[in-house]
Amino acid sequence: MARYLTGIQSSGIPHLGNILGAIEPAIRFSQNPENDCIFFIADYHSLTTIKSAEQRIHNVRSVAATWIAFGFDYQKNILFRQSDVKEVLELTWILSCFTPFPMLANAHSFKDKSDKLSDVNAGLFSYPVLMAADILLYDTEFVPVGKDQIQHIEIARDIASAFNNAYKQDVLTLPTPALQQDSMLIPGTDGGKMSKSYGNYIDIYLDDKALRKVVMSILTDSTPLEEPKKTEGDTTFKLYSLLATEAETAHLASLYAGGNFGYGHAKQMLYEKILDHFQDARARYSDLMSKPEEIDAILAIGADKARTIATNVLNRVTPLTGF
Amino acid sequence: MARYLTGIQSSGIPHLGNILGAIEPAIRFSQNPENDCIFFIADYHSLTTIKSAEQRIHNVRSVAATWIAFGFDYQKNILFRQSDVKEVLELTWILSCFTPFPMLANAHSFKDKSDKLSDVNAGLFSYPVLMAADILLYDTEFVPVGKDQIQHIEIARDIASAFNNAYKQDVLTLPTPALQQDSMLIPGTDGGKMSKSYGNYIDIYLDDKALRKVVMSILTDSTPLEEPKKTEGDTTFKLYSLLATEAETAHLASLYAGGNFGYGHAKQMLYEKILDHFQDARARYSDLMSKPEEIDAILAIGADKARTIATNVLNRVTPLTGF
Repeated sequence: MARYLTGIQSSGIPHLGNILGAIEPAIRFSQNPENDCIFFIADYHSLTTIKSAEQRIHNVRSVAATWIAFGFDYQKNILFRQSDVKEVLELTWILSCFTPFPMLANAHSFKDKSDKLSDVNAGLFSYPVLMAADILLYDTEFVPVGKDQIQHIEIARDIASAFNNAYKQDVLTLPTPALQQDSMLIPGTDGGKMSKSYGNYIDIYLDDKALRKVVMSILTDSTPLEEPKKTEGDTTFKLYSLLATEAETAHLASLYAGGNFGYGHAKQMLYEKILDHFQDARARYSDLMSKPEEIDAILAIGADKARTIATNVLNRVTPLTGF
Repeated sequence: MARYLTGIQSSGIPHLGNILGAIEPAIRFSQNPENDCIFFIADYHSLTTIKSAEQRIHNVRSVAATWIAFGFDYQKNILFRQSDVKEVLELTWILSCFTPFPMLANAHSFKDKSDKLSDVNAGLFSYPVLMAADILLYDTEFVPVGKDQIQHIEIARDIASAFNNAYKQDVLTLPTPALQQDSMLIPGTDGGKMSKSYGNYIDIYLDDKALRKVVMSILTDSTPLEEPKKTEGDTTFKLYSLLATEAETAHLASLYAGGNFGYGHAKQMLYEKILDHFQDARARYSDLMSKPEEIDAILAIGADKARTIATNVLNRVTPLTGF
């Protein structure tokens, strides 16, 4: 068994791009009995940008409900809300005293924003330390990351080493980045990468009418109705192919090639495919969101398990620091 | 009743300068029924410089035992160990998300050290936020400070205002600095201000022989034994006068003026005066230090009272942030 830890942003309701590109692959990965997977919803981190409690709580529940609706096994693995295990903040303070200032000043996440320093809050500056605490508090062995996040793992390793060196003991487990393939590019309605921040995302939890409207807004080229259409580079076709069987996809390709088949027809098929493919997940999500106490209870199970691990690690740390 | 909060450094065993210049005046102040005084021993802060658990725990107990030995009323007031109320770290994280980066970069405490950035750890950089949390977590109205610490209170006020403005509510109490007279200058053995960092301090808890040796090491001028001696600027005389009655001090002054009275004689009188003046406090301190569980129990009483206040304040804060 190897322990993997993943932080999940809680900046909004998961959209189709999140689900296909990140959530479903992560859930499949966590089903492997060899993988001991911990996922946490990073609500402390989200305070660096989102101030509203209502929005944060809704986002957290929406993320949790999505994972559960898509079949995450929260008995085998762990899913919890970061702020439910307050121990992370004690480790954060401790680690900050072993983190050289220049390490944070040179972090990409800070440098990228340092041209507008007055907009940078201290939480944003020091969040690599919170992130290191998130990782180190759970004896994490591997952290699945994209290339652009490797630095955060390096920072966590450096801080852990500094701590271990100070006390001449292997107290904290040094995490290793598990470099992920570039996750599948899921195009958004404008053809660019689907992203909350680009406003080009498809929220599969919309009611049917609103969902159809978004699907119908997908950008296409201006090939006339009668003419054959290219599947390559076409967003509707790409999204359909990610949800449909091979046979269905081949059928749609033949319709594209045949002419007299408009993008409107294709979008209608995509819309129906989304409804069909996500029927169960949408129903389970909607059911969970109407019973927030169920979501909270599931998160509490995760928090209890996470806290047990955290307490064990802190019980190695605090006798050394004297807290 | 007005609430005052004071953080006590835990960087070492309190010495004569701390006792006469800070602890005794603070204890007298706290005896006033109008003053609701909270004192905390800042052990989280001390991690920015001291790494050893043994040293930290010993320092904390030594500070606590001194306050108790000198008559601090821990039933009327509150004395606690900072790390016993972990709620302060949740408020620290929350506040850091309302603290503009430049506010910390411009803090004196950081700027003073910014020529050696590689020696500055992130804890040191962000400790004004922890200090703000210390203050704001207890609905502090007044913070007794010297001139050089006013900026910290201003930072706490600015952060509290930023938080209150974000939520359009008066959630956090804005603290006011209670500017202290420059505390009495207690000279050390070299005639300069008595300070742990100058190594010129008198530890009144030393055993008699070691204490006598330190007193005998007080620097004097080289006026020969036979000649009259000046009391002004003489460290031995100054320290004696701080402990003795007016009549005793006048008597020593007459001995100085009379000649045939050496500094060695004066130091012996000072040594005996220290033994006499601090007899009870030394005995109580020594007794407490031999029963650390008693000190810890007294600190636990303080922590319970402090936690009650802290929980009330956090219960106003976290519904707004959603944690």
